[in-house]
Formats: sequence, C-alpha cells, structure tokens
Amino acid sequence: MDLDALQAICRRIRHDILTSTTEAGSGHPTSSLSGVELMAGLLFGGLFRFDADRPDRPDNDRLIFSKGHASPLFYALWAAAGKISRAELMTLRQFGSPLEGHPVAGTPFAEAATGSLGQGLSIGVGMALNAKFLDRLPYRTYVLLGDSEMAEGSVWEALEIGAHYGLDNLVAILDINRLGQRGETLYGHDLGVYDRKLSAFGWNTVLVDGHDQKQVLEAYAAAEAVKGRPTAIIARTVKGKGVSFIEDKNGWHGKPLPKEDLPRALAEIGAADLDMTLPLAQPPGLSAQAGAAFAVPPPDYDPKKSYATRKAYGDALARLAPGHPDMVVLDGEVSNSTYAEDMKKVAPDRFFEMYVAEQNMAGVGLGLSRRGKKPLCSTFAAFWSRAFDQIRMAQYSAGNVVYCGSHAGVSIGEDGPSQMGLEDLAMFRAISGSAVLYPGDAMSCERLVEAAVLRTGITYIRTTRAATPILYGPEETFPVGGSKVLRSSGADKVLVVAAGITLAEALAAADSLAGEGTAIRVLDAYSVKPLDEKGILAAAETVAAVVVVEDHYPEGGLGEAVAAAFAGTAKKVVRLSVEKMPKSGKPQELLDFEGISRAGIVKTVKTLL
Amino acid sequence: MDLDALQAICRRIRHDILTSTTEAGSGHPTSSLSGVELMAGLLFGGLFRFDADRPDRPDNDRLIFSKGHASPLFYALWAAAGKISRAELMTLRQFGSPLEGHPVAGTPFAEAATGSLGQGLSIGVGMALNAKFLDRLPYRTYVLLGDSEMAEGSVWEALEIGAHYGLDNLVAILDINRLGQRGETLYGHDLGVYDRKLSAFGWNTVLVDGHDQKQVLEAYAAAEAVKGRPTAIIARTVKGKGVSFIEDKNGWHGKPLPKEDLPRALAEIGAADLDMTLPLAQPPGLSAQAGAAFAVPPPDYDPKKSYATRKAYGDALARLAPGHPDMVVLDGEVSNSTYAEDMKKVAPDRFFEMYVAEQNMAGVGLGLSRRGKKPLCSTFAAFWSRAFDQIRMAQYSAGNVVYCGSHAGVSIGEDGPSQMGLEDLAMFRAISGSAVLYPGDAMSCERLVEAAVLRTGITYIRTTRAATPILYGPEETFPVGGSKVLRSSGADKVLVVAAGITLAEALAAADSLAGEGTAIRVLDAYSVKPLDEKGILAAAETVAAVVVVEDHYPEGGLGEAVAAAFAGTAKKVVRLSVEKMPKSGKPQELLDFEGISRAGIVKTVKTLL
Repeated sequence: MDLDALQAICRRIRHDILTSTTEAGSGHPTSSLSGVELMAGLLFGGLFRFDADRPDRPDNDRLIFSKGHASPLFYALWAAAGKISRAELMTLRQFGSPLEGHPVAGTPFAEAATGSLGQGLSIGVGMALNAKFLDRLPYRTYVLLGDSEMAEGSVWEALEIGAHYGLDNLVAILDINRLGQRGETLYGHDLGVYDRKLSAFGWNTVLVDGHDQKQVLEAYAAAEAVKGRPTAIIARTVKGKGVSFIEDKNGWHGKPLPKEDLPRALAEIGAADLDMTLPLAQPPGLSAQAGAAFAVPPPDYDPKKSYATRKAYGDALARLAPGHPDMVVLDGEVSNSTYAEDMKKVAPDRFFEMYVAEQNMAGVGLGLSRRGKKPLCSTFAAFWSRAFDQIRMAQYSAGNVVYCGSHAGVSIGEDGPSQMGLEDLAMFRAISGSAVLYPGDAMSCERLVEAAVLRTGITYIRTTRAATPILYGPEETFPVGGSKVLRSSGADKVLVVAAGITLAEALAAADSLAGEGTAIRVLDAYSVKPLDEKGILAAAETVAAVVVVEDHYPEGGLGEAVAAAFAGTAKKVVRLSVEKMPKSGKPQELLDFEGISRAGIVKTVKTLL
Repeated sequence: MDLDALQAICRRIRHDILTSTTEAGSGHPTSSLSGVELMAGLLFGGLFRFDADRPDRPDNDRLIFSKGHASPLFYALWAAAGKISRAELMTLRQFGSPLEGHPVAGTPFAEAATGSLGQGLSIGVGMALNAKFLDRLPYRTYVLLGDSEMAEGSVWEALEIGAHYGLDNLVAILDINRLGQRGETLYGHDLGVYDRKLSAFGWNTVLVDGHDQKQVLEAYAAAEAVKGRPTAIIARTVKGKGVSFIEDKNGWHGKPLPKEDLPRALAEIGAADLDMTLPLAQPPGLSAQAGAAFAVPPPDYDPKKSYATRKAYGDALARLAPGHPDMVVLDGEVSNSTYAEDMKKVAPDRFFEMYVAEQNMAGVGLGLSRRGKKPLCSTFAAFWSRAFDQIRMAQYSAGNVVYCGSHAGVSIGEDGPSQMGLEDLAMFRAISGSAVLYPGDAMSCERLVEAAVLRTGITYIRTTRAATPILYGPEETFPVGGSKVLRSSGADKVLVVAAGITLAEALAAADSLAGEGTAIRVLDAYSVKPLDEKGILAAAETVAAVVVVEDHYPEGGLGEAVAAAFAGTAKKVVRLSVEKMPKSGKPQELLDFEGISRAGIVKTVKTLL
C-alpha cells in the first residue's frame, strides 16, 4: 500500500471535516479528526471490499459508525472515495440535506442510524451473524466506536455475544481519544484497561497508535487472519488531531472551528488535493445462500379448547418458517416462556439465543434486518423496556423487525409487577410508523404473526400468558389497522372495546349481562396501532356509551387511544385499566382487583344503563 | 463462628424454601437453594450488622437481592432471623400477602424492587456511594446476583462505576449456579471467565465454593479488609442444591416441587429445627452526617430576555442545593448540555459523574433515594429511553427520583432525530404515580424543579435546548397538576393548549392572529401529568375548538391526553404533533416542517374559524 497516497487522502479528509463543519456552524470535527487514519486505512488500505456503485450488494463489507457524531468523517471518507461531491459536503446538517447531523436511514452509505451511543456494535453483531451463519458470505463487518460509549452496558452485551458466536468476521475499532463531551472519559488514554476488559470478554485485541498508518494497516491484516473470535483494534488517538490549537483540548466537543480560525487550521493540515480520490477494493461477487420457500399451511386449533397466545406465537413461527426463508428468531433466554423455542425445533439454524441482554438483542435484530432478514425477537413484554433506546433508533434505520412481548399485564399472576408488561403498549405506540398488535385468541395471533412477517417496519406483538378460548376460524383475516365486532345486536346498550386478555373477559361479561337481559356489543381491537378509529366509531353509533378495557396502565395504551378517537363526539367513554398498584396473586384475582375482569366490566356497564 | 449452627440454619432455610414454594404452587426454589450458604453465611456469620427491629436505621448494612426470583430464600432468611413467621411464609405469592413473587417496595426487609434482572448492583452502587461520600457511614452494601443476569449490560455499567468510585464498602456476590431459565448460561461453571472479566473491570475478586460455609465466611472477611475497590465473591454453586433429583438439572427453573415429591426432598435435606433462629450482628449506632439547610432565594431572570429552560434547570439546582441538603445530582456525561454542571459548581460533593451509562445512573439514583436522598438525574430526553426498565422498576421501589431530560423534540435542530426526545412524554406518563412537568419558560422551570424536589415519587422534567422568552414573574406558583391561561378574552375563538417550546410558538401565533383581528386563548399545560383536565375543559368552554400542539410524537403525549380528556364532550380537538420523519435543520425550520410552529398553529386556527 502506498502510504504517501494514504497520507494525502487523510489531508483531504481533514480538510473536508473542518470546512464542512465550519460551514454548517455545528457538528463534531474534533471527534472526526481522531479517527481519520483509522478509517482511511480501512477504506483505502485494500482490505475493505465494497462496490460503491452498489452499496447493497450482499458481498460488500459493512462499516458502521457507532460513534455517529463523527459523521463529518464518514461523509469525508465517501467524498474521498469519489461518491459525495464537495457541494454536497457543504450542505452538512442543512434542512433537506442527505448529510444529517448523525447518520439515519437513507444517509448515503450508512448501514444504520447511529448517534445514540453504544448501539453500533450490536448492529454489527447482527450483520456478522448473518454473514457467518445465514447468508454464508465472506463479507466482514467493521464498527467504529468512541471511548465515551464504551461506558454503555449495551457495548458489553454486544462484546459477549460477538465472542460467544465466534464472530471472526467482525472488527471493532476503538477510537480512544481520551476526551468525552465534558472532560476525560473513564479511562483516559489508558489503553491497557481496554485491552484487559476486551480480552477478558473473549476478543482478540490489537493495540495501535491510531495515527500511525502503518500500524493501522497491519492491525486490519492481523484481524483478518484471526479465526474463531472477533478482533478489537484499540487505538490511541488524539481528539482534534492535526490542528494544534484544538488537539487533545477539553471544551472542543461538538464545536466547529469559527470561520476566522479555519485558514490557520487548514494551513496546519497542509496542502490537500481536494479532487483526490482513491479506489476501494472490490467484493468477490458472491450471492447469499437463500433457502427455498415452501407453502404455509393454515393454523389449526380445536375451537372448543383454550390456548395461550404466547404458545400460538411459537406455533406461528414453526408454521411460517418453511415458507419464509428470511425469518430469523432471537430470544432473550426465555424461549420456553415466549415459545420462541418452537422455531428452534423446526429451523435451529435460524434461531439465535441472545441470553439476558435485551439491548443487544434489539440491535442484532436491526442488523439482521438491514441485511435483508426478517427478525422476530422475543422476551417478556416488560423487558422490552430494557431496549427502548435501541427500538427508538430502529425507527430511524428503517428497521424491519418484529418484537414479541409475552406475559403482558397483571394477568400473568403470581410473579408480581416486575414481570408485568404494563407500559409496553405506550412504548411501542410512540414509535413512528409502528404497528402494535394484540391478539385475543390463538387463531388471530397466528394470523397477526403472519401479517407482521409480511409487513415492512417495526411491529410489536403482545401475547398473553394464560390460555384463552378460540374465537375465530382458520379462514378469518386480520388486516393491520382493522377490528372485529364479535357480539352485536340492535338492542346493544354499550360498546365494549377490548383486546388480548380483556377480550375474553368482555365476552364473558356479555354472556353474563345477556343472562340478565342486557345486550352489549363487543369489539376486538387487535390492532392497537394503527387503531381502526373508523370501525370503532361506527360500532359505537347506536349505543349510549363506550367502555374500553385493557390490561395496561391508563396512559398511552388502548384506552387513551380510543378515548382520543372519540374527542369531538359527545359519546361517553369509560376507561378501565390498571390503576391500582399491581401485586402477586392469581390471574383472575388481579383482573378483578384492577376492575378489568368480566365482573368489572359488568359493574361498569350497569352504571351506564 | 459456629459452623454447626450455620449448617443447622441452612437446613431450616432449605426446608422453608421448599415448603413455601410447593404451598404457593409457583416460584423459584432451585434458584433459591443455590444461594443458601452464601446468604446464611452473610447474615449470620457475624459481619452483617443490622438492627432487624429498625430496618431503616441509617447505619444498618444493606442487602439487595438482584436475583429477585430468589425471594423464597430471602423470606426464609428473615424467617431464620426470627422476623417472618412460618404462617407468613406459607402465604408466599398469595393475593394480599406481603411476600410477593419478587420483592417490591413494602416487602419486609427488601431494599428495592427486583425481578427485572441486572438492576440490583446499580442500586447497591447508589447505597455505597451514599455511605462513602454523603452520609459518611461505615455501613456496607451487599448485592446477590445470579449468573444469567451477568449477561445484562447494566451490570457492567454498575461494575465500572463502582470501581471508578473505589467503593470498598460494596460487595457483589455472584451465585454461579450454571443454569438459566432455559439451559446453560453463557459461561456455565467457568468461574475463570467471571474472574477475568471482573478483575479487568477493577474489582477485587474472591473465588469460592458457594456451599463451603468456611470459604464463604472467609470471603466476606477478606472483602471487608480490602480498601480502595469493591469486591466480588464469585461462587460456584449448584442449582437446586440439597435435593439430589433436581440438583444441577435443566427444566427446574421457576418450578416448585410437586406436593408428592416434597417429603423425599425434605428427607434429603435432613432434620431441620423449624423454630431455630440466629441473631444478627448489630450496627455501630452512628447517625448520618446531614448538612444544614439554608434559605432558598427566589429565581431571578430579566423579564425582557430569553433563557433556555435547560439552563434554568441548572440555575435551579444551584439555587436550591443549599436549602435542600438531601439533593444529589447525577448526570450522564452531558452536564454541560443539561446544565447539571451548575450543581457541581456550588456543591461538588453532591454531584456524581455517571458517564455514558444511563441504566446504571437510574439505578444509582434509586439507591440514593432509598437511603433518604433526593437524586436529580439528567441526560438528553431521548437517552432516558435507555433506562426505561430501571425507571419502570423504580415505581415498584417507591423511588423518589427526579429525572430531567434536556434537548426535547425536533426543536433541538441540526443534530437530527437520534438526539431528539420524541417518545419521552409517553414513557414517563406510563409510569404509575409519576408527574411529568414541561416548563415553557425559565421562571416556571425553576419553580417546577423546586416542586419536583419537594414532591415524593417519580418526577420527570422536560427541558428545551433553545432559549424562550420569560413569561412569568418570580411570585407565580406552579402546582403540580395545574395549568395557566396566558391569553384570554371573551372574543376567543379557539383554545390552544401548549407546553414547553410550543408555548412560545402559541403565544407568537396569538400575537399574529390578533393582528388580523382573531383572538385565541392560550393555555400552558406545564403539568402534562397529572393533567389539569378540569382547568383545560373550563378554558375550552366558550371556544369553538381546541388545538393541542406539542413537540413529541402523536401517541402518549400531551395531545392524546388532552384529546382523551375531551371524550364525552362534543368539542372539536385538533392535535398538532411530530408526524413527519424528523431530520436535521434549524430549530424553526423543523418546527415549521412538522406544523407545530406559530405558522402551523395560525394555519390550523384559520381552518377552524
């Protein structure tokens, strides 16, 4: 490799970092400058194989900037590869520019949205898992991390899982520039700590001076030679490298150079050929090894029996897997509770145990989806709160992921509130473009899992621990955004809107009230988002009042969504939800305690007559 | 120490674990049995100093069961200390019993709610920080962890911060019983991996056979002798220890013995004296070193200038700190953005840098609050999503914590969506008993921070990056649950409900519309939860329609809450919120893009006239 050419391209990259951020008036030049040699050495050193004309080629190597705030470096790199023009660089951070402050879906060459720290390595684990075990391709995945983000627990989750799966096609590059946003990081320039920690986590480590281009190139070569475990290149770097008056200085995080200081800085960098570009090595020209698709049989349940929707989730995985070779299942060490284990039985090569590390599971799911897979990730509904930030970021990565949360609500019973998902509907509803599906029986659960697999985007499926009666036949369809009226007559006094566990309760309440001569209408709001507002408003037309009943806290769930839909009408809406501090007890005791059982519904309906 | 007595009490504890779970018909006996010698050795070995008649004594040692599912062991321990009766033990997991499936606030002797794995050590770090740096008391904090939960990144955050602060008064006890819920853990019985990992994280480690009482006692003594860093006792244990037919066997997680197998199991344990109790060592009788309180001056801003509410948060910390010696401030390495650094300037001894590790920060905050402190924790609003599970669990621990989220909404501008808090209102509203406060100017922000400090419970304060005009005088009061009508006349056509950044926009819209002869009413909904439904409904009485405008996604925020409050009335409610995928740009460009700026409000009001 021509080191002179590399040094020349580094000058161009530094120039672009400084000028684009000064032009933008904001951004992170110093955090970008520390990684210049590391990244130029990667892209142009001959080992990164990437067809820049076809970024989505399955055999391209992948590069993730976990330290997303170093986006000026990222854009400058691709400018140096001839793929971003100088004019485009100068639109950095402007409204409408593809070069946003932090990479998002649609950012040129970005694999995923980053900017919330500590998430990139999990995404990389997902991509490397895909290469090694699914697509069986020789592409390699590189992740650039900052030292501040090494404090995030999610990074250590990714490190442990990356080592567990022996991902020798994964390289983490640690840009240890000593300084965080407001001062020194936990370990400053003590590379030994990082070395000991990562080694203990089972990674191969290589320590380098991150500004010594030769050492950097050797490190990438060494990483490629190591088999059986991933490699971390731990690089001592200098924040602001190349500009003496901001080098290694506190107070320069996230600050562009003022216009008046720019010429001095550019002079220090030295003459840069602003038209210089370098080529990338090309990928080998291999295709992914896709499985064949087989026909999917319909779900099959005895209509006279009861089944838990969590079990139906597992049944659906097993049923759908042969027909959907892109399906991959991840679970957080509770697959015998979520029934994700059913996938393991039919397609063990497409099931990955993620252990009790939900943040990394969500990131791995995103990484898989960015490589064309359809991941279905499961844990208890309550524990998805652990990965909210990763799910939040997935919406900016155009993530195509199904999250299944089992054990929703107080109806789980004796385990008590720590295990009860009572905020999960609020959480997943708040994600832009998400669908939130909450089946009331095994048959609709199977169909909704199918809909989730076919749908593009972020989909949440909420399942129930307890068995509930079969309500639908195998031919019934459940479009996302729909609803079903299950009981209806001209004499109905009240509409009860329910979903999941409360649907069975609402139907039992209807039976009980019918025995007393009172007819109520019951609607299955299985699509909590998008909510079938039109259908629900229509179903309420001839009744005096609406009762919404849900096994969730009052805010952000089905009740609030339905009540908000009735704003502007004069229809009375009564919301039943979990309002007393939940506790241990039998499922029915707890549903009664919270007033969301058949008894609570009957009582509420009577007050409305 | 009398090892025979310890062995005898272990027999009693095992007996109680088995009988109470079989009686309950659920629970985790095998996960409890593995920790018996570890915990009996701690409580009754002479080093755990605790006045069981006064569990809240500030000089008591603290014990946290991070593996909350081992609650049968926890209850059996306190029964062995003579503090829980056999009759009570037999109510395990029953509705109304204080002995819930997992510990919660109010569970006898529990320091905090646990059961979502990987959270206990952070709580312990908070308690140990308090002992070492705040109360300056010699009490020691012990945390029992399982091996499955060692996969959680949050544990590694707690380990790194515990080492960083040199918490030699903190002991983690790792109950390495090899088996998780559905099979072997990441490292099985390889204690060496744990040793290397924890050593690399800066902890003193002691490896023991967790069923060898002598080794266990020596380990506690060794831990007490180590200065300058925390100790981890890494114990090889056997899941189900003492009952041969479930020992070290998969498939027995979370399963009580069937009634028919109980006699055989009890026979294997050996004769247990079910009335035997052992005493605990007593604490030294010291009081916390509380600081003196000083008078708090009123906030002071130039009414003609604009200030960012995030800066007002910092001002409030500095102003309130002398008057509230219980205040402690934590920040996630962004204190120069959240302005938590203002606390550091006036009370550096009550400011703790938590680095970029939000989960641990939330746990430490909870731990501090459980020791009588009032923690105020801050990071960007978006990044609180990282700690949702810890915040969720805090509601079950009677947590008394203020969370401040700065940089809310699209109005942060150029940094783009990864840094924008757009789901935070939904998240914090969903927490039971929480208050969600969102000030529109610096003056109300100061008063709301004060209200948050005085309030008991979980309080969220949302602050804004940009400066906004001063709207209130220093005498104005802002009760939690209130609202303020800022513009009002008999001619008002529309009520605009706003908060935070959109309040300034609503007032600007009112000015603009007034210039065209249209009067609108403007209400400051600074208390997003509890929402002043009464006040808002009253303010809407004489207008034709209501417009709610917020810098947040449509679900779970102010808009949905206000719309739901109007259900049952025929009042038209229009919601303006962030509905287009946000991006980088100038704050005003983005507010305009989303239709939540003055222009968007004016346009919407005109469609309603």
